[in-house]
Amino acid sequence: MTTTVSAYAAPAAKAPLERTTIPRRPVGEHDVLIEIKYAGICHSDIHQARDGWGEGIFPMVPGHEIAGIVTETGPGVTKFAVGDRVGVGCMVDSCRECDNCKAGLEQYCSGGNVGTYNALDKTGEPTYGGYSTHIVVDEAFTLRIPDGLSLDVAAPLLCAGITLYSPLAHWKAGPGKKVAIVGLGGLGHMGVKIAHALGAEVTVLSQSLRKKDDGLRLGADHYYATSDEATFEQLAGTFDLVVSTVSAPLPLDTYLGLLRTDGALVNVGAPEEPVSLNLFSVIAGRKTLAGSGIGGIRETQEMLDFCAEHGLGAEIEVIGADRINEAYERVLSSDVRYRFVIDAATI
Amino acid sequence: MTTTVSAYAAPAAKAPLERTTIPRRPVGEHDVLIEIKYAGICHSDIHQARDGWGEGIFPMVPGHEIAGIVTETGPGVTKFAVGDRVGVGCMVDSCRECDNCKAGLEQYCSGGNVGTYNALDKTGEPTYGGYSTHIVVDEAFTLRIPDGLSLDVAAPLLCAGITLYSPLAHWKAGPGKKVAIVGLGGLGHMGVKIAHALGAEVTVLSQSLRKKDDGLRLGADHYYATSDEATFEQLAGTFDLVVSTVSAPLPLDTYLGLLRTDGALVNVGAPEEPVSLNLFSVIAGRKTLAGSGIGGIRETQEMLDFCAEHGLGAEIEVIGADRINEAYERVLSSDVRYRFVIDAATI
Repeated sequence: MTTTVSAYAAPAAKAPLERTTIPRRPVGEHDVLIEIKYAGICHSDIHQARDGWGEGIFPMVPGHEIAGIVTETGPGVTKFAVGDRVGVGCMVDSCRECDNCKAGLEQYCSGGNVGTYNALDKTGEPTYGGYSTHIVVDEAFTLRIPDGLSLDVAAPLLCAGITLYSPLAHWKAGPGKKVAIVGLGGLGHMGVKIAHALGAEVTVLSQSLRKKDDGLRLGADHYYATSDEATFEQLAGTFDLVVSTVSAPLPLDTYLGLLRTDGALVNVGAPEEPVSLNLFSVIAGRKTLAGSGIGGIRETQEMLDFCAEHGLGAEIEVIGADRINEAYERVLSSDVRYRFVIDAATI
Repeated sequence: MTTTVSAYAAPAAKAPLERTTIPRRPVGEHDVLIEIKYAGICHSDIHQARDGWGEGIFPMVPGHEIAGIVTETGPGVTKFAVGDRVGVGCMVDSCRECDNCKAGLEQYCSGGNVGTYNALDKTGEPTYGGYSTHIVVDEAFTLRIPDGLSLDVAAPLLCAGITLYSPLAHWKAGPGKKVAIVGLGGLGHMGVKIAHALGAEVTVLSQSLRKKDDGLRLGADHYYATSDEATFEQLAGTFDLVVSTVSAPLPLDTYLGLLRTDGALVNVGAPEEPVSLNLFSVIAGRKTLAGSGIGGIRETQEMLDFCAEHGLGAEIEVIGADRINEAYERVLSSDVRYRFVIDAATI
């Protein structure tokens, strides 16, 4: 039976979010019903609620950093039981048949996966995200949150955490490797924590030294301001891996200059507009310019287990749902350390 | 004792090449004196002789695809003896002390290696390349040409061969991999031969179908025209590796669209001017945009051994030195299949 639940939605592009009700589908054979406890606010929530990418589906309930408790399970569910602590990230389904899905890379599903919100599910119904009291999700796209992690600090791991863990793991950040994280925001601060826990020597490259103390506390070994041109001279040829979390257009040739031979500059943030690149910047030193988007379901579970083992949660500021619009403005002005998390009890 | 030998040189930027004489240094402790038999004409010879990159050293004797016979050895030489068949590529020295040099990646020497021509050696003397009757080279930068390879078809392997072999080996072209070679010129035709010999399924992407029969004969499984827009739709998401040999600015987003998840677009040719890129083209599918320059000395020997084992030489047109200027014009109009090689006996 379809149920009606409370949610915060943007009724139209650029309109403030407001409390409303939305339908949740009946709990199907392989579904779990999750009572949402916390939902992180990701920068892309704001982007989509304001229709920055166009083609938004309204009303829109954002939220793809979801942590909660299973309150009901479909008859075919085998991985979860009522009372389990679970999470949902950016995807709630995929084709499950293409090579990428079979390889556990559902984030790169050839047919396109089904986003947790602002998407249409396989029946053509719009999906609604985590700014809500409940969600119904197939167990195949439900993650287990280990006991060691509080649900509030775990929520942002479902997007910010995996978005950094995946490239750090794929490009083998670890002992003996020098890793730079560009930008110390919601994504970047998880990058610092995870890269440090993986054993890498971590440098933060931030616009200013304003958050330097934080950066070092979170696990960075070094901290440099990118507004200081001397930074790029001093660090030329230093890094095995640079992960950029910023959506501002970077001078790529300059950042590629920070890499050692065979190093990689991996973008998890990106500007809308095209950027300029001199290909000799990758030819000299056999360098890689790459990108990465979230992670697969198996890898997301691996990330949660890793974070629990190392005691890594996000640095958060918990807010009531009535402050979502205010929080959006603060995110846009970089006034958050480092992730807003909505207390779903207030929705 | 410094000797004087015949050579063809560009006396000044953009001036036609003409016969002249140049000094060759005395055969030092670790040097070999090579009687040059053949020297390939590389596109970059033309570029440098015409001072396309600026800062050319004139008079300039181009040529970094050199094959010949050892006629004298220094007292400390251990790897070569008089009569040995040898080659010299794009480098004649490097710092030999940096991490890259120690790792056999002299092409990425931190201090910059010493080019075979248009460079200054460690004593500050200009280096002169292969359009000459003799050259004196440190044995550490001298390659052995296996008996199975004729010197004429081996010469172009020292630049064109290694420039393609290195990225194909590094990005693991082989059985089960789909590889595209962009451009069927001096570099590209060696890419097709080597990728095919490595066991990959090889596709040529060329402006037109004009050289299709050649491409298939050289080892390509498929051949498409990039002037046909349908090519990019038809081949979207197909390749593990695309190696671009062209120096024209490619629409990178379009070419990245040809890659499978985790695929790499590797540029060994590149335009002078910056190119435009939308970073979402690498984020979607965790793709790599990379570059590669020639190869290290150890890898160049490996390439020569591989080519000999598989009977791979360049497709060449042997010319007398008096036709160098004419050959330059024909290279610029793509009127060569696929490499001019100068018969050094005519210099």
